[in-house]
Amino acid sequence: MPVDEVLTMGRIGVDLYPQQIGVPLPDVRTFEKFLGGSPANVAVAAARYGRRSAVISRTGADPFGEYLHRALRTFGVDDRFVSPVEGLPTPVTFCEIFPPDDFPLYFYRYPKAPDLEIRESELDLGAIRDAAVFWVTGTGLCQEPSRSATLAALRARGRRGITVLDLDYRPMFWASREEARQWYQQALPHATVAVGNLDECHTAVGTREPLAIAKALRDIGLDLVIVKMGPDGVLGVRDDHVERAGPVAVQVVNGLGAGDAFGGALCHGLLSGWDLAAILRFGNAAGALVASRLACADAMPTEDEVKAVLSA
Amino acid sequence: MPVDEVLTMGRIGVDLYPQQIGVPLPDVRTFEKFLGGSPANVAVAAARYGRRSAVISRTGADPFGEYLHRALRTFGVDDRFVSPVEGLPTPVTFCEIFPPDDFPLYFYRYPKAPDLEIRESELDLGAIRDAAVFWVTGTGLCQEPSRSATLAALRARGRRGITVLDLDYRPMFWASREEARQWYQQALPHATVAVGNLDECHTAVGTREPLAIAKALRDIGLDLVIVKMGPDGVLGVRDDHVERAGPVAVQVVNGLGAGDAFGGALCHGLLSGWDLAAILRFGNAAGALVASRLACADAMPTEDEVKAVLSA
Repeated sequence: MPVDEVLTMGRIGVDLYPQQIGVPLPDVRTFEKFLGGSPANVAVAAARYGRRSAVISRTGADPFGEYLHRALRTFGVDDRFVSPVEGLPTPVTFCEIFPPDDFPLYFYRYPKAPDLEIRESELDLGAIRDAAVFWVTGTGLCQEPSRSATLAALRARGRRGITVLDLDYRPMFWASREEARQWYQQALPHATVAVGNLDECHTAVGTREPLAIAKALRDIGLDLVIVKMGPDGVLGVRDDHVERAGPVAVQVVNGLGAGDAFGGALCHGLLSGWDLAAILRFGNAAGALVASRLACADAMPTEDEVKAVLSA
Repeated sequence: MPVDEVLTMGRIGVDLYPQQIGVPLPDVRTFEKFLGGSPANVAVAAARYGRRSAVISRTGADPFGEYLHRALRTFGVDDRFVSPVEGLPTPVTFCEIFPPDDFPLYFYRYPKAPDLEIRESELDLGAIRDAAVFWVTGTGLCQEPSRSATLAALRARGRRGITVLDLDYRPMFWASREEARQWYQQALPHATVAVGNLDECHTAVGTREPLAIAKALRDIGLDLVIVKMGPDGVLGVRDDHVERAGPVAVQVVNGLGAGDAFGGALCHGLLSGWDLAAILRFGNAAGALVASRLACADAMPTEDEVKAVLSA
């Protein structure tokens, strides 16, 4: 088996997106089904840039689980680490789409999401060590046994190569922000890159001020810190180098998935050895492209598409 | 408040039906959303015949719950006994549509369906006593507090008027068929009408032979027993009168909801004082009409539509 260039771990599910835009859920008549889940989307985004990517996750033992395998393979993402869990349905997530900035999510991840049943004993630690980029998310820390598995994977990795903690924070998955912070603080010393929006960074380090966030995360030992500031663009801090990139103006259709598009671009840029300014610009443009489209995974752009936006 | 002609109690939810027919769930691209849940469908079917109908149920405190209220009102069904439950999502149900006879269901009723949180203390026993038809289902017996509430409603009703137990049996809601039978046997003495297909009658009384089913249920005290035999039509036994009605041939699109269409027709026929043969014929035609259409609640026919099928 060739070594993975981008190996992500965590949430996967079926997204059901309204085909009627700008209307509340009661008025939505039809939904379109897509592959979803942040780490799955990041793997898809990386695959669109030609990166060999794979996902570590779990689904229900049901037709929607079968769909997720098929979707990953269609996008060129290796599904060998995606296994079924008996008795738990594959999660589905509905959203409302109110452009430009309101996209409420309705998660059906009960009685428990199969991806929270990722177990340390079932991990391929060799593959985790060997991947060029290893990517985990905060949501993977919200429940056992996924929490222990995520921390074990990070420990086994030992800060090899590029090890990303996506600070992905969904309040409904946690008892409190403080509980999340406790586990984020356990995970962060094992990561080399942290990425999150202002609210997620607040969860991780207790402040919403971009430079203070970067300092707190640098003090923990992160090599690269990326803070997504919404309309104010993106801040990147690597060593003592501070870079900012402004947002790329688009007609927003659905903001969901834009962060994962940025994540896939970040993997590609780091693997390509681009400088920080180039990575942030490319990531912003990739995110903007996905925000201008309805889907998430299905909307991930190619490198040529992103470059066309950058040169426009 | 006027007295209800048809008051049903139990399951309600959002049905998501594939818009691509005859394909497995992984291949379905889009879904259409409908009101669902057997007792809700029966109330809608009765309302289509001009009957004042209402539902006793509960939803999540969420946009899908709001949709269910709106859908009931649109269909002319009184929603005053439908209340929200904090912290439980409104259930959604996906199906696969393989005509003519395979329609697998995928329920998302976790961590618990709000309609299983119907509580005895919140029932309007006066309205339950006064309704001309009171309709409960076996599924309402599968968990507390809905089970105690259903039995309390039946006791309060005291076999007044027309009291129907729809033997509706979904194996995934029960630990075993035997557990279901135990509670069906508690409920049956309070009912005047029992209706179910062969498998549901097996759950209720332990036999699959239509006349033996009717005898067992008559021995419990039921005035009217209706056994739905699929391709063999319907058997009705009232007092010592035995009636059979053959199936009505249609091009089946989606068999889901046909039983509820029969249920609504049964209420209408009983309230109209029709003879048993006429009720069974009308119910079969109503069921066939709904089976020839994609939707359930949205597909319930008017009396003129059913009569057109009968005279065709």
